[in-house]
Amino acid sequence: MMVVYFKVSGIIPFEQALEGMREMTKKTFKKKGDDVVNMNLALIDAAVDACQEVPVPATLDGVGCVDDVKLIPDNASDFAKKIIEPSMRQKGDDIPVSAMSNDGVIPTGTACLEKRGIAPRVPHWNSENCIQCGICASACPHAAIRTKLIEKENLKDAPKSFNTIPAKPALADEEFKVQVYCKDCTGCGVCVDQCPANKNPEKPALTWSSIEKEEEACELVNEKFFDELPDNVMGRNTTKTIKGAMLRKPLFEFSGACAGCGETPYVKLVSQLFGENMIVANATGCSSIYSGTFPTIPYTTNKEGRGPAWANSLFEDNAEFGFGMRLAVDQNRSTLKTYVEKVLSNEKTPADLKAALEEAISHFENSKTEEAHAAQDKAKEVLAKYKDVDCPDLAKVRELQDYFTDKSVWIIGGDGWANDIGYGGIDHVLAQNQDVNILVLDTEVYSNTGGQASKSTPTGAVAKFATGGKRTYKKNMGLMSMSYGYVYVASVALGADRAQTLKAFQEAEAYKGPSIIFAYAPCIAHGIDMSKTQTEQKRAVEAGYFPLYRYNPDNEVPFTWDAKDPKGSYQEFIRSEGRYKSLMKTNPEAAEALYTQAEEDAAKRMAVYKAVGELMR
Amino acid sequence: MMVVYFKVSGIIPFEQALEGMREMTKKTFKKKGDDVVNMNLALIDAAVDACQEVPVPATLDGVGCVDDVKLIPDNASDFAKKIIEPSMRQKGDDIPVSAMSNDGVIPTGTACLEKRGIAPRVPHWNSENCIQCGICASACPHAAIRTKLIEKENLKDAPKSFNTIPAKPALADEEFKVQVYCKDCTGCGVCVDQCPANKNPEKPALTWSSIEKEEEACELVNEKFFDELPDNVMGRNTTKTIKGAMLRKPLFEFSGACAGCGETPYVKLVSQLFGENMIVANATGCSSIYSGTFPTIPYTTNKEGRGPAWANSLFEDNAEFGFGMRLAVDQNRSTLKTYVEKVLSNEKTPADLKAALEEAISHFENSKTEEAHAAQDKAKEVLAKYKDVDCPDLAKVRELQDYFTDKSVWIIGGDGWANDIGYGGIDHVLAQNQDVNILVLDTEVYSNTGGQASKSTPTGAVAKFATGGKRTYKKNMGLMSMSYGYVYVASVALGADRAQTLKAFQEAEAYKGPSIIFAYAPCIAHGIDMSKTQTEQKRAVEAGYFPLYRYNPDNEVPFTWDAKDPKGSYQEFIRSEGRYKSLMKTNPEAAEALYTQAEEDAAKRMAVYKAVGELMR
Repeated sequence: MMVVYFKVSGIIPFEQALEGMREMTKKTFKKKGDDVVNMNLALIDAAVDACQEVPVPATLDGVGCVDDVKLIPDNASDFAKKIIEPSMRQKGDDIPVSAMSNDGVIPTGTACLEKRGIAPRVPHWNSENCIQCGICASACPHAAIRTKLIEKENLKDAPKSFNTIPAKPALADEEFKVQVYCKDCTGCGVCVDQCPANKNPEKPALTWSSIEKEEEACELVNEKFFDELPDNVMGRNTTKTIKGAMLRKPLFEFSGACAGCGETPYVKLVSQLFGENMIVANATGCSSIYSGTFPTIPYTTNKEGRGPAWANSLFEDNAEFGFGMRLAVDQNRSTLKTYVEKVLSNEKTPADLKAALEEAISHFENSKTEEAHAAQDKAKEVLAKYKDVDCPDLAKVRELQDYFTDKSVWIIGGDGWANDIGYGGIDHVLAQNQDVNILVLDTEVYSNTGGQASKSTPTGAVAKFATGGKRTYKKNMGLMSMSYGYVYVASVALGADRAQTLKAFQEAEAYKGPSIIFAYAPCIAHGIDMSKTQTEQKRAVEAGYFPLYRYNPDNEVPFTWDAKDPKGSYQEFIRSEGRYKSLMKTNPEAAEALYTQAEEDAAKRMAVYKAVGELMR
Repeated sequence: MMVVYFKVSGIIPFEQALEGMREMTKKTFKKKGDDVVNMNLALIDAAVDACQEVPVPATLDGVGCVDDVKLIPDNASDFAKKIIEPSMRQKGDDIPVSAMSNDGVIPTGTACLEKRGIAPRVPHWNSENCIQCGICASACPHAAIRTKLIEKENLKDAPKSFNTIPAKPALADEEFKVQVYCKDCTGCGVCVDQCPANKNPEKPALTWSSIEKEEEACELVNEKFFDELPDNVMGRNTTKTIKGAMLRKPLFEFSGACAGCGETPYVKLVSQLFGENMIVANATGCSSIYSGTFPTIPYTTNKEGRGPAWANSLFEDNAEFGFGMRLAVDQNRSTLKTYVEKVLSNEKTPADLKAALEEAISHFENSKTEEAHAAQDKAKEVLAKYKDVDCPDLAKVRELQDYFTDKSVWIIGGDGWANDIGYGGIDHVLAQNQDVNILVLDTEVYSNTGGQASKSTPTGAVAKFATGGKRTYKKNMGLMSMSYGYVYVASVALGADRAQTLKAFQEAEAYKGPSIIFAYAPCIAHGIDMSKTQTEQKRAVEAGYFPLYRYNPDNEVPFTWDAKDPKGSYQEFIRSEGRYKSLMKTNPEAAEALYTQAEEDAAKRMAVYKAVGELMR
């Protein structure tokens, strides 16, 4: 833009401006290395060559402009029409206050309305080469590539372009499909990088295409049909493998996270496993931004209308916020049970109502199964039938009927929240020994505010407030959490071991006390190739940089060390990431010393975790 | 009082009132056991017998009343006369706002003006039986019993009643003295309980007397003479033993803490070791109340005018508050050094000023020694001589001259602050790796607000919010602190091992990074005999209830386990304390289960500390 400005405006001689820009570029990017300097210089040259005049038409007639484009489908909700569409058209100032809800609650499932179409490239599914592993869907930060098992019967009205392959292991009458959502894809490339079939360049399952080409191939039509097919309810029984979990509809989709984000695949996975009965307390940070930037919400519901409820309080109180949700749910459930018992012991209660309530309450302790959901739905139906009966006990049951189902409380945030600003609260909540699940998306830095050091930043990493390389250790928050003895603790890295991540999430959910999971999440702040964020997780674990373990108080031997002995080089790993290698430019001597120390710290950390894990029984 | 009220008022038949009071007493104290019920019933009977009419005189003439009593000596400060004395006379409303300092700063060394004389009994020193160990002074919560070495020459004007004994090990011309401050004593009995000589009932060094008797024996005169004798400056070199440390003037004296307080002996010890150069950031809690209840302050100065500065911020930010003090001191010292160098390189600087500044700055890194203090005092003197010279650099040096001496920053508070409300801050401050010392006075309960459970309250203990016995473990805050690797951590119990406590305090001070000390402090909330609080510490350690250890990152082998293998019975110990045994009354079954679990928890804790300590190198 500067090149164009100086070329067009002629405010100073263009050659002089060009020289100045080149000097400034060298100075600005010096610390980031010659590669970055040269790329920026090349960009200046390219801009010089590419600059051309765009004639301004005399009138706007016939020029396609945003006002003419249909943004929201006709069957969208009132909220979408009255709030989201005007916001999209940058006419938010025209929305009357009265159009908003009184309590600030807004509907979920609306990020899908923002068909941004920003991807410079999108993946194309070559069905004949697909091995049906589900890794593409698991790795995608935006739920823009999905898998489904489809009963053949449901394919009878499929568009011609809708290709599927027979499901394997062969399920009678089931077809398997990978669907790309082209206009929701960011083109980050993580799926293409991760696809195991792609290792054979002759038979790749995912290749690059463009939105235009895919549109020509009717992918938008396919996507619509795919969307309307039944959710994989049987997936409830298939969440023991990543492949199975990926058949489930993500109840977190199309967020505005960065292309290649290392965090969102974890959030998506949680939503696929537990989203139907989930309440989320979200700390301030990237995850609060991509999960709740007004007016659209990436959290959504399945076809039964079940899905997560989500809220964000303050940076410093998120654990307590979620803890309050837990206590409220427990209190409401206990109250519901009391009133159901009152209604059941009332001789005037009609037989069908009695039967429905008895059935629903019989699933009280194990309330999230298919059968429980069916009984709960039935009870709600019968309760509605008697809604005009003047009985305060019955009214109370109806008021609290959503609590027939227990809720899964997830407290989510980044490492800055978990290690620093919200740590006092996390520690307090863990100590209370109640059933909450805490997910720490560990980018080892305050990502959302531009890369400030947190207590999770390791020795030697360069971050704001640690521009000379961090001088103190990465906080041992896993050890600190484990020290309570009754806290489930896990350290996971999806790209390194998907099965271990899945296991940790399921164990955390199953454990009837507090759980905390530290999930390694590569980030733009790391100075890495963002199409390889899942690969970077694998490298981190193999280099002995990030540990994989689980501490499950329910087990006789609670601690399991899940990582293999490091086979990669620690030094090679850290020196390949911008956040470390930039120190080599600015202070090579300090860099060497800190890198050595960093490796020692990591080794010591691993040894202590292993040993303490053994002890903590 | 109720007995007297009903007897005098006749509002209902007295026998009926008496019966009602007896019933209520039984009900109220049932949970505390038959002993407590019977003591209260006996009290009612005693009140019935003791009730007698006190005639009200026709006039107040000749009746001694508080207005006639001299409260403040003539040579007291303006602050004492204008603020403290009216406050003592309950005439605080008459003090004009203009009499207070603008910035809220008030002078230290004023608790000594409150000669309360509340002790129902005071210790009497039997010099002939004394072994000069200093334990009485170390155990006293109020600095009301002290020891001094006195040069014989200084005894020439001593009152006749001023008895001393030859110092042992024999120091030429030195005499040893134990001085009781009768009117500052609370009569708690801890000194008498702890005196080793008292184990031989035929030759006790401390026996009971009354204030009146001791006054007759001229102890108030002796006390005044003792006070005016030079401080044991040589004590600076004798702080390697408790005996030596106790020869130093306590720079924390006569606080309003409870009789028998388990906390104040630690605070007093810190003041004797480091008080001359100390700044204290105090958390809210007992220690903020007894250290700073307007208008008097127990922190005081020695004869050179050196002593602690003290402040209390909020409950939740005390660690950060102290951390700010550390940063401010470091910044001021660094600025001072820069300006001293400027003045030294200025050719116009007079030779004597140059010499004095050079000498003072030569002690910059080791600035708390006798020699350093002398050089600093000299520099201040010469700086004053040139105070009218118009030189901004010199003005800056004068402004910052107090920073020739480095400050020892102590961050003090209770376990509720440390484990709960202020923990996020403590964790953050420890992680910053700066030179601060944190002292946690661990009563295992929120003492000041009446005994609410904190995360330091162990399994099974009864406290508010845990009236059925605490169900979760005592937080492993020592382990959590140790997990940083660069934090000095110690767990101490003065009455169990005085030498270990002293060592921990000195190591913490010497360590040039963050230090945290957990100090076991028995409390009225424990339901124990408060004359035996130091003995209770010993019992706790011997029963394996409270650990003694030190983790010093400066050492090649950082961890030292200081406690012997438990020789007492854990069950016997906890069942002897009211906070545990009350559960036997209210819920004997739960009590048995929790007591067993408590013992298991403690054993596991000890094992983990030992093992982790070994690992953390």
